[in-house]
Amino acid sequence: MNSKKTTVEKIGDSETLRRLEDLGQGLIEKIKQDEEPKFQLPLRSRSNVVYEEGLGVLRLGQKQEERRFVSVGQAKKFMQTIAIANKTKKFIEENLHTSIRGLYYQLKFTLGEDIDEDLFSEQSESNELVEDLEVALAVKREDFNLTTDRKGVVAGQLKIKDKFVGEETVIDGTKMGRSGWMVPSDVDNGMEFLDIKADYVLVVEKDALWQRLNEDRFWKKENCIIITPKGQASRGTRRLIRKLADHGLPVYAFTDCDAWGWYIYWTIKTGSMNLAYLGRNFAIPEMKFLGVTMKDIDDHDFLQKLTINAKAVDLKRAEEMMSYPWINIHKPWVAELKRVLKTKKKLEQDALQGQKLTFVGDYIKRKIKENDLLP
Amino acid sequence: MNSKKTTVEKIGDSETLRRLEDLGQGLIEKIKQDEEPKFQLPLRSRSNVVYEEGLGVLRLGQKQEERRFVSVGQAKKFMQTIAIANKTKKFIEENLHTSIRGLYYQLKFTLGEDIDEDLFSEQSESNELVEDLEVALAVKREDFNLTTDRKGVVAGQLKIKDKFVGEETVIDGTKMGRSGWMVPSDVDNGMEFLDIKADYVLVVEKDALWQRLNEDRFWKKENCIIITPKGQASRGTRRLIRKLADHGLPVYAFTDCDAWGWYIYWTIKTGSMNLAYLGRNFAIPEMKFLGVTMKDIDDHDFLQKLTINAKAVDLKRAEEMMSYPWINIHKPWVAELKRVLKTKKKLEQDALQGQKLTFVGDYIKRKIKENDLLP
Repeated sequence: MNSKKTTVEKIGDSETLRRLEDLGQGLIEKIKQDEEPKFQLPLRSRSNVVYEEGLGVLRLGQKQEERRFVSVGQAKKFMQTIAIANKTKKFIEENLHTSIRGLYYQLKFTLGEDIDEDLFSEQSESNELVEDLEVALAVKREDFNLTTDRKGVVAGQLKIKDKFVGEETVIDGTKMGRSGWMVPSDVDNGMEFLDIKADYVLVVEKDALWQRLNEDRFWKKENCIIITPKGQASRGTRRLIRKLADHGLPVYAFTDCDAWGWYIYWTIKTGSMNLAYLGRNFAIPEMKFLGVTMKDIDDHDFLQKLTINAKAVDLKRAEEMMSYPWINIHKPWVAELKRVLKTKKKLEQDALQGQKLTFVGDYIKRKIKENDLLP
Repeated sequence: MNSKKTTVEKIGDSETLRRLEDLGQGLIEKIKQDEEPKFQLPLRSRSNVVYEEGLGVLRLGQKQEERRFVSVGQAKKFMQTIAIANKTKKFIEENLHTSIRGLYYQLKFTLGEDIDEDLFSEQSESNELVEDLEVALAVKREDFNLTTDRKGVVAGQLKIKDKFVGEETVIDGTKMGRSGWMVPSDVDNGMEFLDIKADYVLVVEKDALWQRLNEDRFWKKENCIIITPKGQASRGTRRLIRKLADHGLPVYAFTDCDAWGWYIYWTIKTGSMNLAYLGRNFAIPEMKFLGVTMKDIDDHDFLQKLTINAKAVDLKRAEEMMSYPWINIHKPWVAELKRVLKTKKKLEQDALQGQKLTFVGDYIKRKIKENDLLP
């Protein structure tokens, strides 16, 4: 198996099955030839995380590690990984999905009642091995028919053709009334965009602000799509934004003005160190930052009064971000972070409503119109 | 103002405005008569929480407390409450909504730049006073045009006519494809059900299981509505279930088999002590518990193997639940709780997928068909 492949966007069930079978066949071949069954995969540790400047994303570097069967320390893990590969192959063949927790229980049951030891005793074991398999085969877990937790919401100028369990539905983001469509776990297999006419995508950190903008019918007036990840973005939300960016839509982020909100932006934009194994498919390096910034205080007097004290966790995160080479190459970001560390203040996106509830929309429009954005 | 009113389901903007004005006029009258401005409201503390057996809900009892202006300890709070009442009145008149956080920033700004002290320094202050106002006027915060955080998802045999910001949209729960409609913050004002043909409502604690059932098109085969609160239910989700129950639909809960999951059920069913001030409008006493139960282990051998150790927090919660008179009057619940405390085991709803992914649906169908339910 070629472990240097990078995860591809959408490979389809037959290709996923082929890669799972290749893994199994390769191991069987080794056994037949009296060799030790083993396979290689990119090392998934911080020491192997690189920032790829050309792409603008965090990804795994060239370091490889080996999973070996004939090793006291690794034999169990090896067996577990193969059990996961085998089980997900079955899910794909049966055309059924489950969560990692469901996978865990299916595997827990695998060894049968006459064997005392469980195949897994903790779910954390199976989580890690699912990541192993994603990296080793360059297949994302959604393609192994594993569902992930949903969190984000979308509405606006977006139509989706959704083929799911033999049904075809059109999801219309302008027909969601007072709420929105929950961003699904898998936005690839069987899902495609229909005539996207939106001018851009707006990613709003907090649900409360999304609701505010939805009430103002901001997406209608501005011809855009509004998405809230509700804090850190789920895998589905990140993939959805990635796919919209692939359609040529600009993506703007709107978060709290504190290191925590900004980190949410950076994680969506470049990925994080822990998620570097996902690479570009879950990152949106083209994304721009619209606000809230400390600089906004200079432009809007009333905001000065509405700053609040930064928490210790905000300041710690700000210090960390100052040390990240993919962030500290940007002068405006360094200025923002320094200002947070100096003033020990923060400004929530909710504060924009302080003077007038509908100011939020005006603020966003001006920022985009004047291209008053951070990288 | 009559503080003995109980919160009514849906009172409309004009009635909410009338109550807000009554509050203000009452205070002005007192001042004109050289009396101290003050008002009464039900005491919102545990000592005043009663379980109303006839209704099957937790609610506030007869004890009252007073908010007084001429009191060193209360003057600031009093002023804050009036400021909130004044501001929400403005929101209703402007026909605009915001979150409590948005309200907080609007109020923070109220005093103007020449006054050094903030009207509020912490949001927790305004939260508490919003509750005061809900209880004092028997109006829920949604009717004050305050939005709340959204979390639940719904799909299935449900059609909603949604009048929102001058638009009318039909939300069709059978046309949500692979995902669902996010349960909105306010499910009363401007929202009504269209020809509900569902036979029942299924409330599924975990999103992963909801996704499993949605993939099986369980709601289509069983002609039902599926809702996941994603853990503890948001206000919007609880109100939605309440309204569906008011339409005569049976409601069944499906949670983990541990005190934590069961507590989620009981909070939706009777309310919790902290939320007793909400009364019946956010409670569903008719709701029945479908599973998972410890007794299920006796009926399904494979589940024995899939139990896991209960956490300390599960056991503590189980002990507490044993002491609640609205729970310990039910023998089957006492038996369940005792079994958890004795075996120190729990069983997650995900475990039902251990043998066969689609078993979950069969399990639910059998439970309902055989009326194998807990109160």
